[in-house]
Amino acid sequence: MWPVAPWTRDGPPERTDPFSPAGHPPDSTDSTDTTDSTASFAPPNDPPLPFVLPFRSRSPAPPPLPLSLPAAFPFPFTFLPRRAGPRSRLHPAGPAHRPATASRPDAPGPSGPFPRSSTFLIRPVSLWPSPCPKTSPSSEEIPLTEYRSEYPFGVRHDGTEPASAQAEPGSSPPCATGTLESGLLLDAFDAQLFREQSETVVAKLEKHLSDVSIRGLDLTDPAALTDAARALMTTERTRIAAFDERKLAGIVDLYIKTGIQVHSPGYMGRQFSGVVPLSGVIDFVSSVVNQPSSFYEAAQLPSVAERIMAEELNAFIGWERDGFAMVTTSGGSLANLTALLAARNQAFPGFWSEGGAGLAGRPRPAVAVGDDVHYSVARAAGVMGIGDAGIVRLPLNERHQICVERAPGVLDAAERRGLKVFCLVASSGTTAMGAFDPLDELGDLARERGLWLHVDGAHGASLLVSDELRHKLRGIEKADSLTWDAHKMLFTPAPCTLLFYRNKENSLGAFRQRASYVFDEEPDVYTALDSGEKNFECTKRPMIMPLWTLWAVYGRALFARKIEYLCRLTADAHHLLVRESDFETLHRPEANILCFRFRPPGLAEEDVHAFQVEIRNRIKSEGNFLISKVDVGQVAALRVVMMNHQITSEHFGMLLGEIRRVGRDLLRQNRPPR
Amino acid sequence: MWPVAPWTRDGPPERTDPFSPAGHPPDSTDSTDTTDSTASFAPPNDPPLPFVLPFRSRSPAPPPLPLSLPAAFPFPFTFLPRRAGPRSRLHPAGPAHRPATASRPDAPGPSGPFPRSSTFLIRPVSLWPSPCPKTSPSSEEIPLTEYRSEYPFGVRHDGTEPASAQAEPGSSPPCATGTLESGLLLDAFDAQLFREQSETVVAKLEKHLSDVSIRGLDLTDPAALTDAARALMTTERTRIAAFDERKLAGIVDLYIKTGIQVHSPGYMGRQFSGVVPLSGVIDFVSSVVNQPSSFYEAAQLPSVAERIMAEELNAFIGWERDGFAMVTTSGGSLANLTALLAARNQAFPGFWSEGGAGLAGRPRPAVAVGDDVHYSVARAAGVMGIGDAGIVRLPLNERHQICVERAPGVLDAAERRGLKVFCLVASSGTTAMGAFDPLDELGDLARERGLWLHVDGAHGASLLVSDELRHKLRGIEKADSLTWDAHKMLFTPAPCTLLFYRNKENSLGAFRQRASYVFDEEPDVYTALDSGEKNFECTKRPMIMPLWTLWAVYGRALFARKIEYLCRLTADAHHLLVRESDFETLHRPEANILCFRFRPPGLAEEDVHAFQVEIRNRIKSEGNFLISKVDVGQVAALRVVMMNHQITSEHFGMLLGEIRRVGRDLLRQNRPPR
Repeated sequence: MWPVAPWTRDGPPERTDPFSPAGHPPDSTDSTDTTDSTASFAPPNDPPLPFVLPFRSRSPAPPPLPLSLPAAFPFPFTFLPRRAGPRSRLHPAGPAHRPATASRPDAPGPSGPFPRSSTFLIRPVSLWPSPCPKTSPSSEEIPLTEYRSEYPFGVRHDGTEPASAQAEPGSSPPCATGTLESGLLLDAFDAQLFREQSETVVAKLEKHLSDVSIRGLDLTDPAALTDAARALMTTERTRIAAFDERKLAGIVDLYIKTGIQVHSPGYMGRQFSGVVPLSGVIDFVSSVVNQPSSFYEAAQLPSVAERIMAEELNAFIGWERDGFAMVTTSGGSLANLTALLAARNQAFPGFWSEGGAGLAGRPRPAVAVGDDVHYSVARAAGVMGIGDAGIVRLPLNERHQICVERAPGVLDAAERRGLKVFCLVASSGTTAMGAFDPLDELGDLARERGLWLHVDGAHGASLLVSDELRHKLRGIEKADSLTWDAHKMLFTPAPCTLLFYRNKENSLGAFRQRASYVFDEEPDVYTALDSGEKNFECTKRPMIMPLWTLWAVYGRALFARKIEYLCRLTADAHHLLVRESDFETLHRPEANILCFRFRPPGLAEEDVHAFQVEIRNRIKSEGNFLISKVDVGQVAALRVVMMNHQITSEHFGMLLGEIRRVGRDLLRQNRPPR
Repeated sequence: MWPVAPWTRDGPPERTDPFSPAGHPPDSTDSTDTTDSTASFAPPNDPPLPFVLPFRSRSPAPPPLPLSLPAAFPFPFTFLPRRAGPRSRLHPAGPAHRPATASRPDAPGPSGPFPRSSTFLIRPVSLWPSPCPKTSPSSEEIPLTEYRSEYPFGVRHDGTEPASAQAEPGSSPPCATGTLESGLLLDAFDAQLFREQSETVVAKLEKHLSDVSIRGLDLTDPAALTDAARALMTTERTRIAAFDERKLAGIVDLYIKTGIQVHSPGYMGRQFSGVVPLSGVIDFVSSVVNQPSSFYEAAQLPSVAERIMAEELNAFIGWERDGFAMVTTSGGSLANLTALLAARNQAFPGFWSEGGAGLAGRPRPAVAVGDDVHYSVARAAGVMGIGDAGIVRLPLNERHQICVERAPGVLDAAERRGLKVFCLVASSGTTAMGAFDPLDELGDLARERGLWLHVDGAHGASLLVSDELRHKLRGIEKADSLTWDAHKMLFTPAPCTLLFYRNKENSLGAFRQRASYVFDEEPDVYTALDSGEKNFECTKRPMIMPLWTLWAVYGRALFARKIEYLCRLTADAHHLLVRESDFETLHRPEANILCFRFRPPGLAEEDVHAFQVEIRNRIKSEGNFLISKVDVGQVAALRVVMMNHQITSEHFGMLLGEIRRVGRDLLRQNRPPR
């Protein structure tokens, strides 16, 4: 706090009047009469008094207006209502939208009426002709602004010691004020404009969310979309363009219209979700308050929320409360890489500093994975210097899980080829078919062989929160690390990935450096919550906030009920499929991913692959449904992911009808593709 | 489109009435009389008619209310106004907040009045006792719901061919409806509730943004904050908790209060910014529409916006329009890693598949960096199997730039040690001091020696958009790749990182795999815009949208003017400092980062380091300003980053005054730390 403080953390003291320099209480007559009197200001008699800019009124009543300023007022200033500049032409009427008058020294300020809620800024204005001298682009240094201010100011810290600014009278006023350009810059950060922009957007999003019509993708030609997007861009090249609400509305409309319709029952194609709207709302707060969350001091609540969510979710994993750790990271791919790095650095302690070349002559590191593992795992091997040739693929059983019986033989064979497998990656919910690897048995196998067991539960770990479905991950407590995407089955905006370690010491093993500008030398109660040494990112979105907020407000049951419904719906859809003789089912779904093929009579065996691809593309381009495709045994299949609780079996029936129609059209046109 | 379509992409046809199954136009008397008549509904005479649920009214007028339903109405249903369930106790009055009545078959619906804007849902209700049979947690499979529906429904596609659901009469109704629990689930996705939540949040954010008081950090003990956060969480363990607005308000208040105050002039500590509010608003849209953007089909406008922004920004870099490429990625660390991977894979073509061990006996890969390079570069070397021992540090000159004269000698020495340097990393804006390495000369050096030149312009690349400041990156066109954080000096929410390649072929070199469920087999006009093979992430936030929207609405000048002001302000602050004999300046700032020390008379040389650290911590804990510290030549210094155009020289003067006061207090207490 200031010893003689015109400002506190909460702003100026209550006694401060916006039109009186601090230390000069306003005339009591003026401050009580708020209706129609003309304000007059006594210029301060002792010039170097505390006077801090910018300056915001906190008085409950608006100042008396109209306002005339005494010519003797010693501070050059600009009087800005909160809404300033040429934007006002967009708001032609209404007291809240009056244009500002950028007054010159001793010119009168703008006249009222202003609404009672208005706040006002007083900013210094320079007295010299060119307050912002331009630098020629070729000059080597920015020239310093000359200090030619005519007015003394500064902050007196106490009665005896002048402040720096005061000891150095004539520091320059901000160049950004006093010009049309700076008014537009201030406008862009205006809080009231922010609210109006938000209202525009909220109305459009509300309409979007309330639209439960069945629709897929409105696939637009990129060139046409580029033209449409370019048409929304300002043509102003040299000055700041005034805010144009029509541009914002046009952008949001185009964004919503051309997007994947995650909130529609027609969306069955991907694993990201129609978010719980509240999670989007809190994500909005994150976007505005901007608290990147790798360090406690920059994001206190997100850091604490991470700890809380770690404990809440670990209750379903079952690790020792004081022994485990969790970090958030930007997506499942990065979580898988991070876990594999921790495993690599543990198994090969010299790898971090010496790299792969340091292993010359010794067995080469390798990672064992199920044949259906997500592509990010093989990618991680390529990234981290193991090489994707160091991926040992374990065969699957008829349920598309890692075959526990055949795994040891494959591992033995890998060792004979000179590989040292240090990590086994299981999938809890494969991306392709949603199959759950047998964690209990794989955990035993990993322990026997001294392997790090990493579980990629990006899709399926969320089943842990359901009492009905938790058994799909039986044995999860034997894992060393677990990737869990909240942006999939916990229905938050993407990305929000949680990476769990059974042993918290391991969470420090993935990355190893220190930098003086981010890492504090002496850990304390605050820096103990920093995650910058545990996650790859330096600047990281506080992605936990949407998840924690949903969990705090609605509780676990919101997720459990929705997940249970989606899995039951998928089972129902499968049940429907098996009775349709012209459809081929490829598995009994374990969660909410279902793969199948349409094989009507008359379809030649060699055309099955291309037929499914073509059906998928036509369904997509017709725009009623969005589904995906996946290769199962090298032959394409149709793939449905049920992410929306507003989907019913009837919608799935409609999809099958559409597939039939499209497929029979294809056959009728006598051109089974290729 | 459906051949006989009860639904189009835009919802049910206009003629559809919410209380009449499609195909049965409502009684004309009922549809025109919207005031007080009692609606009666003719049950459909031909049972298997199209009847699709859920069902949303699009009629402009609200249905007549109160409403009595005929006992003969053949479809079991629930009548839900959009606002349902126990949440209504939070909104005790007002027609918009009436509680729902979950009516049983042939019970009357809820009575009005409802506001004219209301929409209504009709959902099927099951007739049997337990619509959602619970599975015992130990069972292996989810049991299929039995098909016992009493009512026929389905979709008739055309006159002759029954649809699947119809061919299979009796598919199950959604289990999620018809119970209190499901009402709460639907509530959580309710569009009107979303609007109300948004309004709560917007009001708080508006207040936050309009607060220009000078404040730093309100540092809270993590344990106390955890208690406060836990107190905001629902205690409901088994059921979905009803939405409680007080919880949301409490969370947002706590979030804002404990955050780093990026919009305050007291915030001078870090490189992330107080965002332009509009960028937060559009990020909100991203959070709700959830279009992860690695693939064109999932995020059409973001994909196009990336192309547009790439072209717009490349105008300031100067590469060939058809030759370069840009991808977005989750933060500067990931961009640096990606660029180094592309460089590594080009220089060592076998590295991706064989890993580092494949290089046995050959020179080991190494990366040359300036001594002040960001820690993410050394981290990348550790990650990617080069090893941080493969980092060759180039000495700096007195301006803290890479010393071009001494670099060749260091590179030669590295080669003699058996290293093969394949990449040179220059910084455009070092994190520590904001120094700009001489790109023009380093570009020549890299070309001579066949090195990939990567420029980490996370902080400073944004200076390119200013005609005044672009010269700081003279020679940028010689780079092979460039990291550029928009979330720093382009003032968007974090993260938004752009990674540029001079040669677009190189953008495909960082990662090399294919997965059938994401990568299409045959590239077409759409998949040409996919970025999934070029960026590490599979699911990636559409982070370009805030940047592109700002650029589209305000134009380049918004960024240029703000950056120019910040750099000038920093120069002014430096000018102020050099005249203060008790402060030590460490450099002439090149952008908006300024490092200095407070060295009052009486401070012993050996105490300088700890004294700066202690000053920094005290300034932080007093909560008026937030600054950071950095080691310069192994001795701590104070570091200021000017990110806010509302900071003036006067604020910097206040900071110096506070540093003086704190520092002299420390000295007076006669305990120079250690």
